[in-house]
Amino acid sequence: MLIVQKYGGTSVGDLDRIENVAKRVAKTKDRGDDVVVVVSAMSGETNKLISYANHFSTNPSPREMDILLSSGERVTSALLAIALKEMGYDAVALTGRQAGIITDSIHTKARIEEIDTSKMRENLNEGKIVIVAGFQGITKNGMVTTLGRGGSDLSAVAIAGALKADLCEIYTDVDGVYTTDPRIVPNAKKIDKISYDEMLEFASLGAKVLQNRSVELAKKLNVNLVTRSSFNDNEGTLITKEENIMEKPVVSGIALDKNQARITLRGVSDKPGIAAKIFTTLADANINVDMIIQNVGEDGSTNLGFTVPENEFDRAKEIMLDLNASKNLEFDKDIAKVSIVGVGMKSHSGVAAKAFETLAAENINIEMISTSEIKISMVVKEKYSELAVRSLHDAYELDK
Amino acid sequence: MLIVQKYGGTSVGDLDRIENVAKRVAKTKDRGDDVVVVVSAMSGETNKLISYANHFSTNPSPREMDILLSSGERVTSALLAIALKEMGYDAVALTGRQAGIITDSIHTKARIEEIDTSKMRENLNEGKIVIVAGFQGITKNGMVTTLGRGGSDLSAVAIAGALKADLCEIYTDVDGVYTTDPRIVPNAKKIDKISYDEMLEFASLGAKVLQNRSVELAKKLNVNLVTRSSFNDNEGTLITKEENIMEKPVVSGIALDKNQARITLRGVSDKPGIAAKIFTTLADANINVDMIIQNVGEDGSTNLGFTVPENEFDRAKEIMLDLNASKNLEFDKDIAKVSIVGVGMKSHSGVAAKAFETLAAENINIEMISTSEIKISMVVKEKYSELAVRSLHDAYELDK
Repeated sequence: MLIVQKYGGTSVGDLDRIENVAKRVAKTKDRGDDVVVVVSAMSGETNKLISYANHFSTNPSPREMDILLSSGERVTSALLAIALKEMGYDAVALTGRQAGIITDSIHTKARIEEIDTSKMRENLNEGKIVIVAGFQGITKNGMVTTLGRGGSDLSAVAIAGALKADLCEIYTDVDGVYTTDPRIVPNAKKIDKISYDEMLEFASLGAKVLQNRSVELAKKLNVNLVTRSSFNDNEGTLITKEENIMEKPVVSGIALDKNQARITLRGVSDKPGIAAKIFTTLADANINVDMIIQNVGEDGSTNLGFTVPENEFDRAKEIMLDLNASKNLEFDKDIAKVSIVGVGMKSHSGVAAKAFETLAAENINIEMISTSEIKISMVVKEKYSELAVRSLHDAYELDK
Repeated sequence: MLIVQKYGGTSVGDLDRIENVAKRVAKTKDRGDDVVVVVSAMSGETNKLISYANHFSTNPSPREMDILLSSGERVTSALLAIALKEMGYDAVALTGRQAGIITDSIHTKARIEEIDTSKMRENLNEGKIVIVAGFQGITKNGMVTTLGRGGSDLSAVAIAGALKADLCEIYTDVDGVYTTDPRIVPNAKKIDKISYDEMLEFASLGAKVLQNRSVELAKKLNVNLVTRSSFNDNEGTLITKEENIMEKPVVSGIALDKNQARITLRGVSDKPGIAAKIFTTLADANINVDMIIQNVGEDGSTNLGFTVPENEFDRAKEIMLDLNASKNLEFDKDIAKVSIVGVGMKSHSGVAAKAFETLAAENINIEMISTSEIKISMVVKEKYSELAVRSLHDAYELDK
């Protein structure tokens, strides 16, 4: 097997942890697998370098930031190669450039355009463990670029795709993806397998294990992604094609997003273009609108409701008051979004009905509903949201 | 004018000092000059990275060390560019690779083979201040290399040569080259101009301002080198071609090297090959022999004396006892070497005579003498060595 392993900043946070990662990599190699390791900067390093830059400028030039920030991953890759060599393994550290990561030239948030795998393959063919500095690449003109936050995950997935690796393991400090937040539901279970689409829903709903960009890329490149912990030997969660998951559960998990606020406009005059104006104005102000519900009111006028992240609420409120699109504006910060995610919904009816019944039995009022093929999201009062998650987790028997 | 400025680790030792360097560079640019700046890693950074590597291995792989160590200079170059841009100057940071520094593939002590100046010229032509990460380069095959200790000086001199710069300023924390160590002779004077060959003698004699490799390269590439302090506005010392120095002083300065020990063999049988055997054995043991004196003794046998650095003395002593080349071996650690350096000696007679008279007048016995075209070195008892330096400094009127 060819395995790409990615170790995040916490997993390589100090020299002892790098030693621990070296042992894990060695164990994989001993098993007879080929290994490409992608590493992040030691935790704290990137923030330190950013604070250095901010000492000089609140808005440092992106081109120079990339030269600055790409140094952290180079350090980790060299140290891990040195540690593995000392243990008797043949290892080689490659910078983003040497690993052939070619990106566009959007500094600090570049996109990988292609990967020239020749150097990695050459070293793998020689039996070497290949260690790649994550998060960085190079443009066709030789400029240093970085891929933005979560960039090392992207490096790993893109490399796994380019090398047609059997597996891409993303190591963090959590065991994998859970049926729901174990702090809310203590008997939440780790999910063994989950489809890309379900994972994308979880990621958009605030699960912090993986970023959407990485999951999307894995889906596009058909990379089998595993998220697991570098601090124990637990198996982790496999994120893969729906076809690869034999037994599809109707519901995979429940997500809770408390970082939501709602704005409601009642009695909007039903002229074309009003909604467009509202959402264009919000988009121009870089406010991320999440759920949008529109209904015709009693008198033929329109009721419009939408949610925004809580930290963008004040700006959104100001914009809505300025726009004056409706005389009847309501603002509510004390709401939360509870979502049920599962590919099985596509072929099972009654999933939504069960959710509504469950919340009704707890006397929890559902204020907004939005559904997709594999997700049902409901807005409830924030104070009832944890109860809602617990009762839904029970209702769908996710602890079984 | 096109000026290359190199700032060492102490000069960029913290963020405030980098700010200070930015102001100096800006002042040069304001004067109307074009500037290329070469920077070292912030002081302490390189040693920190070495200690990281040594945590894993006492003998870390040179290839990986180069990826590790080259990161420090990249950080400084990016930060200085960011600082200058914030001050309103157009600046660009270039890594060793981007600056076109092509080296051989001897990792951790690579030699610069050529410089592709196109990127630097392109940026200079656009009016930009070019900031280059020193100490590093890249092989033709794309491997990262570093140039060894003092490598940033070499980067600066090589770049100045390739760009045919008018001046290459090396900034450190000392004002320049002095007629002798001011701690021994308080009225020692800073030398305004000195020839490459004199500087080479001073450097071999332990003056720590510049390393021999950099001075040799400056001589070869005909680069006008200035060594000066980044902590004040004093003029520094210009190191240049002998022809460029109008008024050649007979003696430029006095150097003192206390890190010397002497080994004397009396009554060595005068067979061919004995001396060869002694010095080959010492060379094989990596012992640097400095002065060598051979004389025929009274009975036709040979007396052989030589000096070695004090820290290599114990090993040298052991080797000499093993070799058993003479029954009459003498070892002396309490000696020092006092040297007089000056290009004027070539055309002035009586320089040596004056030195001998001066020391005789102080009742200081000269135990060994060795001369070159522009240098007279004398071994004396260590306890008299500072007095010797002071009286010679007076005798040649170096404070005038």
